[in-house]
Amino acid sequence: MSDKETLQGVLDKAKFNQDGLIPAIAQQHDTKEVLMMAWMNRESIEETLSTGRVCYWSRSRQQYWRKGESSGQVQVLKDLYFDCDYDTVLLSVDQTGPACHTGRRHCFFYKVVDENVIINSKPMIDPKELYR
Amino acid sequence: MSDKETLQGVLDKAKFNQDGLIPAIAQQHDTKEVLMMAWMNRESIEETLSTGRVCYWSRSRQQYWRKGESSGQVQVLKDLYFDCDYDTVLLSVDQTGPACHTGRRHCFFYKVVDENVIINSKPMIDPKELYR
Repeated sequence: MSDKETLQGVLDKAKFNQDGLIPAIAQQHDTKEVLMMAWMNRESIEETLSTGRVCYWSRSRQQYWRKGESSGQVQVLKDLYFDCDYDTVLLSVDQTGPACHTGRRHCFFYKVVDENVIINSKPMIDPKELYR
Repeated sequence: MSDKETLQGVLDKAKFNQDGLIPAIAQQHDTKEVLMMAWMNRESIEETLSTGRVCYWSRSRQQYWRKGESSGQVQVLKDLYFDCDYDTVLLSVDQTGPACHTGRRHCFFYKVVDENVIINSKPMIDPKELYR
């Protein structure tokens, strides 16, 4: 593309999969932690950009997933990027509390160590407290 | 899972998609930049862990993609994590030079600014130099 293109033009060529979805990586804007990966469709990208609060598409529930609507742990959007192939989105966000449904700050807590996998972080909040 | 499980047990329950693939996010271990997102199958995860050099599965070429084998820009594995749902992998890596085929350090250089998308980083190396 040239140095500047319209958002709608980029959304037209973005590579949504057969279910209309594109993977979205959420990164905490200041600490740079990778918090989670989820999926978005075109409408959830547009909603996220217009409201400034991250909205995914839940594949398990087959509905929009406005992050934090049940747990209160919202993601405020700082910046949104597409990758070189227009097939992945990177969300720079400000995450309130835990991003993970287990109550942990981020979802990537299963660490491979030799031939084993260990849990390398503790919940910030008991998940029972998150989804009362 | 309990606090410790075998790698093979986790690979058995990891959620590879209908093509046998799982998304893998590569993050530079020290600067925490998100470099790229690509796909791995079970064998490429096992190879990556045993060799210490990141190997993806190329969906476009339908073959193993040992990062850097044509460009020289290898990814040395520091750590590998699974997420809470076992459906995404996070690779902590040491990337030599550019991770992106455009010669840029990372792939997420299309930034949304209002109703437009701009390019917000420059190549480190001319891509013609990368793939001679």
